[in-house]
Amino acid sequence: MKPVCLVIGAGAGIGGNVGKRFAREGYHAVLCRRTDQEGLDTLVGAIESEGASASGFLLNAIEADSIEDRVAAVETEIGPIEVVVYNLGAQIGDRALADTTDKAFEMGWRLATFGLFRVASSVCPRMEERRKGTILVTSATAAVRGNKGQHSHAAAMGGRRMLCQSLNAEFAPKGIHVAHIIIDGAVDAPDTLGRMLGPEKFQELREARGLEHDGLLLPEKVANTYFHISQQHRSAWTHEIDMRPFSDLPWWNH
Amino acid sequence: MKPVCLVIGAGAGIGGNVGKRFAREGYHAVLCRRTDQEGLDTLVGAIESEGASASGFLLNAIEADSIEDRVAAVETEIGPIEVVVYNLGAQIGDRALADTTDKAFEMGWRLATFGLFRVASSVCPRMEERRKGTILVTSATAAVRGNKGQHSHAAAMGGRRMLCQSLNAEFAPKGIHVAHIIIDGAVDAPDTLGRMLGPEKFQELREARGLEHDGLLLPEKVANTYFHISQQHRSAWTHEIDMRPFSDLPWWNH
Amino acid sequence: MKPVCLVIGAGAGIGGNVGKRFAREGYHAVLCRRTDQEGLDTLVGAIESEGASASGFLLNAIEADSIEDRVAAVETEIGPIEVVVYNLGAQIGDRALADTTDKAFEMGWRLATFGLFRVASSVCPRMEERRKGTILVTSATAAVRGNKGQHSHAAAMGGRRMLCQSLNAEFAPKGIHVAHIIIDGAVDAPDTLGRMLGPEKFQELREARGLEHDGLLLPEKVANTYFHISQQHRSAWTHEIDMRPFSDLPWWNH
Amino acid sequence: MKPVCLVIGAGAGIGGNVGKRFAREGYHAVLCRRTDQEGLDTLVGAIESEGASASGFLLNAIEADSIEDRVAAVETEIGPIEVVVYNLGAQIGDRALADTTDKAFEMGWRLATFGLFRVASSVCPRMEERRKGTILVTSATAAVRGNKGQHSHAAAMGGRRMLCQSLNAEFAPKGIHVAHIIIDGAVDAPDTLGRMLGPEKFQELREARGLEHDGLLLPEKVANTYFHISQQHRSAWTHEIDMRPFSDLPWWNH
Repeated sequence: MKPVCLVIGAGAGIGGNVGKRFAREGYHAVLCRRTDQEGLDTLVGAIESEGASASGFLLNAIEADSIEDRVAAVETEIGPIEVVVYNLGAQIGDRALADTTDKAFEMGWRLATFGLFRVASSVCPRMEERRKGTILVTSATAAVRGNKGQHSHAAAMGGRRMLCQSLNAEFAPKGIHVAHIIIDGAVDAPDTLGRMLGPEKFQELREARGLEHDGLLLPEKVANTYFHISQQHRSAWTHEIDMRPFSDLPWWNH
Repeated sequence: MKPVCLVIGAGAGIGGNVGKRFAREGYHAVLCRRTDQEGLDTLVGAIESEGASASGFLLNAIEADSIEDRVAAVETEIGPIEVVVYNLGAQIGDRALADTTDKAFEMGWRLATFGLFRVASSVCPRMEERRKGTILVTSATAAVRGNKGQHSHAAAMGGRRMLCQSLNAEFAPKGIHVAHIIIDGAVDAPDTLGRMLGPEKFQELREARGLEHDGLLLPEKVANTYFHISQQHRSAWTHEIDMRPFSDLPWWNH
Repeated sequence: MKPVCLVIGAGAGIGGNVGKRFAREGYHAVLCRRTDQEGLDTLVGAIESEGASASGFLLNAIEADSIEDRVAAVETEIGPIEVVVYNLGAQIGDRALADTTDKAFEMGWRLATFGLFRVASSVCPRMEERRKGTILVTSATAAVRGNKGQHSHAAAMGGRRMLCQSLNAEFAPKGIHVAHIIIDGAVDAPDTLGRMLGPEKFQELREARGLEHDGLLLPEKVANTYFHISQQHRSAWTHEIDMRPFSDLPWWNH
Repeated sequence: MKPVCLVIGAGAGIGGNVGKRFAREGYHAVLCRRTDQEGLDTLVGAIESEGASASGFLLNAIEADSIEDRVAAVETEIGPIEVVVYNLGAQIGDRALADTTDKAFEMGWRLATFGLFRVASSVCPRMEERRKGTILVTSATAAVRGNKGQHSHAAAMGGRRMLCQSLNAEFAPKGIHVAHIIIDGAVDAPDTLGRMLGPEKFQELREARGLEHDGLLLPEKVANTYFHISQQHRSAWTHEIDMRPFSDLPWWNH
């Protein structure tokens, strides 16, 4: 039976590409996203057409029991989850405090912080019993510095980062590898950045960032590092790592 | 009319002592705490007996509109809020992930992160109009590093810190001073630490920490620094500062 | 006998103003700078004309024994040093790696890192015997993030910061307060910034930063916070604090 | 012609193992260390016996021109340096300030900070011309927090970290990848840790840390991550990463 890699937040950017990468390496990828059954089917189909294996599920992470039930079903019906990729973003663009509703602020927390807590609460007891498991958490610049208009996003991601450190403190000695991956730049992802900007502006940005299309984080390249981290020997685990394009300034320089 | 210093979380520790200090310096202290009308009355009485002025209100910060209504009432009935001290803690002691309920995790966020967001949303527009104001935020070690059993607290405080940076980015240029004060040690506070430990253990700890009772953070000494920060000239503002007893290790050394 | 406040790096900016502030509060200020006997005499004269007391010495901090001999002489001839303000900068402007000579790189270290080590080696044993002392270290943005052209300065200041933490770890429990003060912005100082820019550009910058001349760090305002930190009760010491003008972005936002 | 991987500090720990790993992947490994020609020959021999290629040189990094001449000779006689691994440590064990001589303090800087500056000054212009190159810098806990007895080491490593950020700011956009790798734990390395502890205590520590010998960082496992980072696509570069054994606490938790 193949080990399972569960991706929460599997669109056409980092999530989907990481799922694809794990599938190629012999995992069964379980891909979850909130909407777009068609996109999900396409992604599963693409993986299967390479001879690898995947399943796809729509999952609304802010609904009660949605995460808990999916984890339980995967464990029962597909197999033990060896790797979780928590890839839900909570970026809503820059909004002044006056334009940030209580609801928007709370939504950031539900997606970025509480969702991870619920996933961890569901999978950690299972991984602990098996003395093995990996939780790869996609994070953002906003986890390490607040900024203008980022009230909801930064509070949510700052919470995510501290939660990752707390999970690591409890579970690393029990054989569960928690990694906090700071994606410190714009990702070449049509589903998220592309939708936020609209197709024309997105294409302009891609072109502006370089003829070789490497001025944005290419999600299939990011996926290589996610996979590497999941394979680190437990004598040499990484908890925190940052990633950005060569041509971009790191967060502490802008 | 005296300027107002509003303290959210005014017990016998940092909150109450900061309120007292501002009252002595000519502010009207508005002291809010969740329970203990008697303790509140005692505190107000002690301030008034020194010839300074204060009011006290019970306030359940997690109730809808509680903060918003209190801010509005203070502005209308007492006077413009010049300083806010946000002093709600969210420490629930060390709890394994399995013992941290969804509710406990959410409560940490409601108190430590969302409450600050709501206060800021209420006071910032008023301060912005006056082009003047100070928000002093008590924070904790857990804002800068997660730890075993700190899932709820660290996630909440990590969010608080990033929110402070985001508020600072938007409001400092508008004349509102936001300071994130990392209280990196145990406070000699009967209401919080004392209650958590029980009276005997609390007294033992106080004695163990030094004959001169300075091995715990003394809240009236902490209050001096809160007041100093509030009086900094705007050409030389502090956003982040840490505090701990001389005999204690800073968080990065233990 | 007045307690002594020794300032290493006492020009017309932070160093001189901090010295003046301590003198006003009853300390004897010992002001040391590398050159400009006239400027030094003027500063001492200004302090004495206020009825306070000070001495001035030229001191080339990179010369062997210069610091050690001065500390010894002050202790013998003037009195016990209670406060040291280490205020030597090492900013040489932005220089590409190819334009940064070995000598320039080393000079940064000699001024910013090694000089502090030598001061600490000289004063700590004396302070330790008296179980009392304060070392206030002026630091810079470059202590917390490297940047383009800052090879020498950032390496030197990064070393300074870690040295401060190491000194704190050894000496705080012995009653010596070490504080690392991150001056995260341009200081309205004619000796340093003024000289680097030239008088015209300096004036332009001052005016551009605001009609009320508070868009640069005003050194006499900064001095208030230095003094406050030196007076903190030992139950509530600050090790690290940042300062910048309200109108400036903190380092993590630019 | 094979690309060259130059390792400064190639003992039996991380340096030697990283060299071996690059050699296996098709690089010519140039291994430099201060002493022990025999150990160096053994290492080169081991690599060659696997059918890979390597050269070894004794190099005293604190001697004038030693690094500069070696870089020049390698470029002329062996080939263009594609990867540099800067692996010189400067740990001298815990020493009180009173026991840390000026010379010991300076030596830390010469090895940990200045040596890296000299390597960068030598290789960056060459890499810049080729628009390609990687500099992997081994770093330590002491780069991110000072500690008791770590005056020399922490000041040196703190400087190293800020230098890495400054190098990155200038050279990343020119295609040179600089990575700062925080080795946050004890390495299972007979040459360094083993020599510091003596053979018996070293063996005791290894056994105490776990039956499976994975409670210390295993250098051949660390080498996998060094190699991975060197192969990251330039759209997704890592500048900073930490590594430690699963059973060890990260620096922020002890």
